[in-house]
Amino acid sequence: MTAPDEKDSSTLRWVGELPGKLNMIDQTRLPEEFVRIDCKSPEETWHAIKRLSVRGAPAIGVAAAYGLLLGVQNDENLSREEFLNKLQSTADYLAQSRPTAVNLFWALDRMSQVPKTHPELAPPELLVRLLAEARAIEREDQEMCRAMGEFGQTLLEDGQGVLTHCNAGALATAGEGTALSVFYAAARAGKQIKVYADETRPLLQGARLTSWELQNHGIDVTVICDSMAGWVMKEKRVQAVITGADRVAANGDAANKIGTYSVSLLAKAHQIPFYVVAPSSTFDFALLTGADIPIEQRDPAEISHGFGKQTTPDGIQIYNPAFDVTPAENITALITEKGIISPVTTENIASTLNSGS
Amino acid sequence: MTAPDEKDSSTLRWVGELPGKLNMIDQTRLPEEFVRIDCKSPEETWHAIKRLSVRGAPAIGVAAAYGLLLGVQNDENLSREEFLNKLQSTADYLAQSRPTAVNLFWALDRMSQVPKTHPELAPPELLVRLLAEARAIEREDQEMCRAMGEFGQTLLEDGQGVLTHCNAGALATAGEGTALSVFYAAARAGKQIKVYADETRPLLQGARLTSWELQNHGIDVTVICDSMAGWVMKEKRVQAVITGADRVAANGDAANKIGTYSVSLLAKAHQIPFYVVAPSSTFDFALLTGADIPIEQRDPAEISHGFGKQTTPDGIQIYNPAFDVTPAENITALITEKGIISPVTTENIASTLNSGS
Repeated sequence: MTAPDEKDSSTLRWVGELPGKLNMIDQTRLPEEFVRIDCKSPEETWHAIKRLSVRGAPAIGVAAAYGLLLGVQNDENLSREEFLNKLQSTADYLAQSRPTAVNLFWALDRMSQVPKTHPELAPPELLVRLLAEARAIEREDQEMCRAMGEFGQTLLEDGQGVLTHCNAGALATAGEGTALSVFYAAARAGKQIKVYADETRPLLQGARLTSWELQNHGIDVTVICDSMAGWVMKEKRVQAVITGADRVAANGDAANKIGTYSVSLLAKAHQIPFYVVAPSSTFDFALLTGADIPIEQRDPAEISHGFGKQTTPDGIQIYNPAFDVTPAENITALITEKGIISPVTTENIASTLNSGS
Repeated sequence: MTAPDEKDSSTLRWVGELPGKLNMIDQTRLPEEFVRIDCKSPEETWHAIKRLSVRGAPAIGVAAAYGLLLGVQNDENLSREEFLNKLQSTADYLAQSRPTAVNLFWALDRMSQVPKTHPELAPPELLVRLLAEARAIEREDQEMCRAMGEFGQTLLEDGQGVLTHCNAGALATAGEGTALSVFYAAARAGKQIKVYADETRPLLQGARLTSWELQNHGIDVTVICDSMAGWVMKEKRVQAVITGADRVAANGDAANKIGTYSVSLLAKAHQIPFYVVAPSSTFDFALLTGADIPIEQRDPAEISHGFGKQTTPDGIQIYNPAFDVTPAENITALITEKGIISPVTTENIASTLNSGS
């Protein structure tokens, strides 16, 4: 299939004003089909997040903000108390769609702050403020992506090979991506980067999404199986690894798509820098280390029947954690919208992310 | 599907005498279907090896020996010279089916020695000797599997979790397997082992074959994606790794299914022993190190269209090496039919494999 028209290329967008709807690419159908779907209720948004039609920590955050709005946008005639109750119950509901990415909770919390900072406003005015807040979250995500890309590209040299895992691209954010924004910024800076994309079993976000997205942007990309990551390092095909993150603890331990931890160890064994690109919205300062990050367990059928064909015997046991945690010590640098953090320590993270905020 | 009848369970077998045929499980169709196929010519054998209907270094060796016999079994009326020419050209042909596993060349060479050690024999008698030699290769493989299993199981403790990659089981040999023979021997010794099987992309020999085989034998097995190997180590679910090998150099560097190298590094990082189980027929003393082992590159479609469904965009670049090489320094011990070699050094390998031979 061909690349989408420019007007259709946004990962997700709010259509209309109030009432409006959330329109998004259905990422479960890429690369075979480019289809956009509408979410007109929190329930539709919940399912879109759960089944990974929209995925990636920052994009989940933006989707949740708009999903929350969908839950109350027709309730302007409620009392303020009733309105706030519904807002809260909708937020609680959306918070249960996926447990690991912290941006989901961060965005819902930020939306929930709106009525608290405006105790004088009634539902009609609150709705206007809530839409403005969701749009701000979306716009800020775009700006953070751009900033991370510019910081990150300074770490790459023309001609390098770089490995990435899963999809931390435009499809995972409202902007250019986290990890992949670095490749777009490097291209703007005139650097030729050869990207190796882990296919990322079980759901193949690398094979399906990263390759599609980079190909559409004219970036040189080669798909490999996850099991080949160590070997391409051994063969000196890659000189750096760049991934995103779903939640980063105060000390820099970073939860990301299952397999990231292995890749970090392989990079370490080959003395290759391992970079994690994450906006401040992905940091969870309530957790001192990554040990307490909840790891989502997903349906075994993703492994046993992942491609429309059964690939394991009936009744076989399957273990399917969706994420793992890479310890800070394996991360050469954290790339945030406020700067590059290296070495990765609790103190450096705090000082960088608190600057100018 | 249910387990096959006992009479059908052999991975491959010679049916009849002279002329006969090579009958085997078509492993490309497991676990969905249990189907046996016949090879009546070297060409059918070549394609069965190439498309992985029969795979695994020792099984490829046995198949090649019988495949060579298929090429000459109706030529008893040729002159000895014509017969030997045909034997040689058939061996050369079969040798080109797959490049990495050395057992293929070892078995063909062993068959080719038969006429040389019997310069007085004419084709009818040579055919009888060649069938006997192929059967000896098969029988010895069974005995080697059993011996490796017994040696290997002494390294495992009751209750341990053990990770394996690809399928180095009964399906990969004429006997109980190389790596998996250790689990069968451990079970006979009354040890409960919990096996984690990497699914082993792209062709899923772990998900399809190892799980099926161990399940049929009543061994506790859990399938994971290759990308989860590091995380199950981190979670202390496994206390050892056991794999097979396709070719082992004189210094112990071992070629095996792509991904094995990564697993060896992950085991090292977690201080988990990494064992390679390989019979002497898998050693290639002509190679001082693994650097010269040829690595088979396979069809990109195995990655892009592996499950009856396209999983990458049209025209995407793909890299698909079928094997990698694990350096001897990452291997805690080599388990052979003649004993356990540890530490893995050129000297220890030579002294163990030359004993009693």
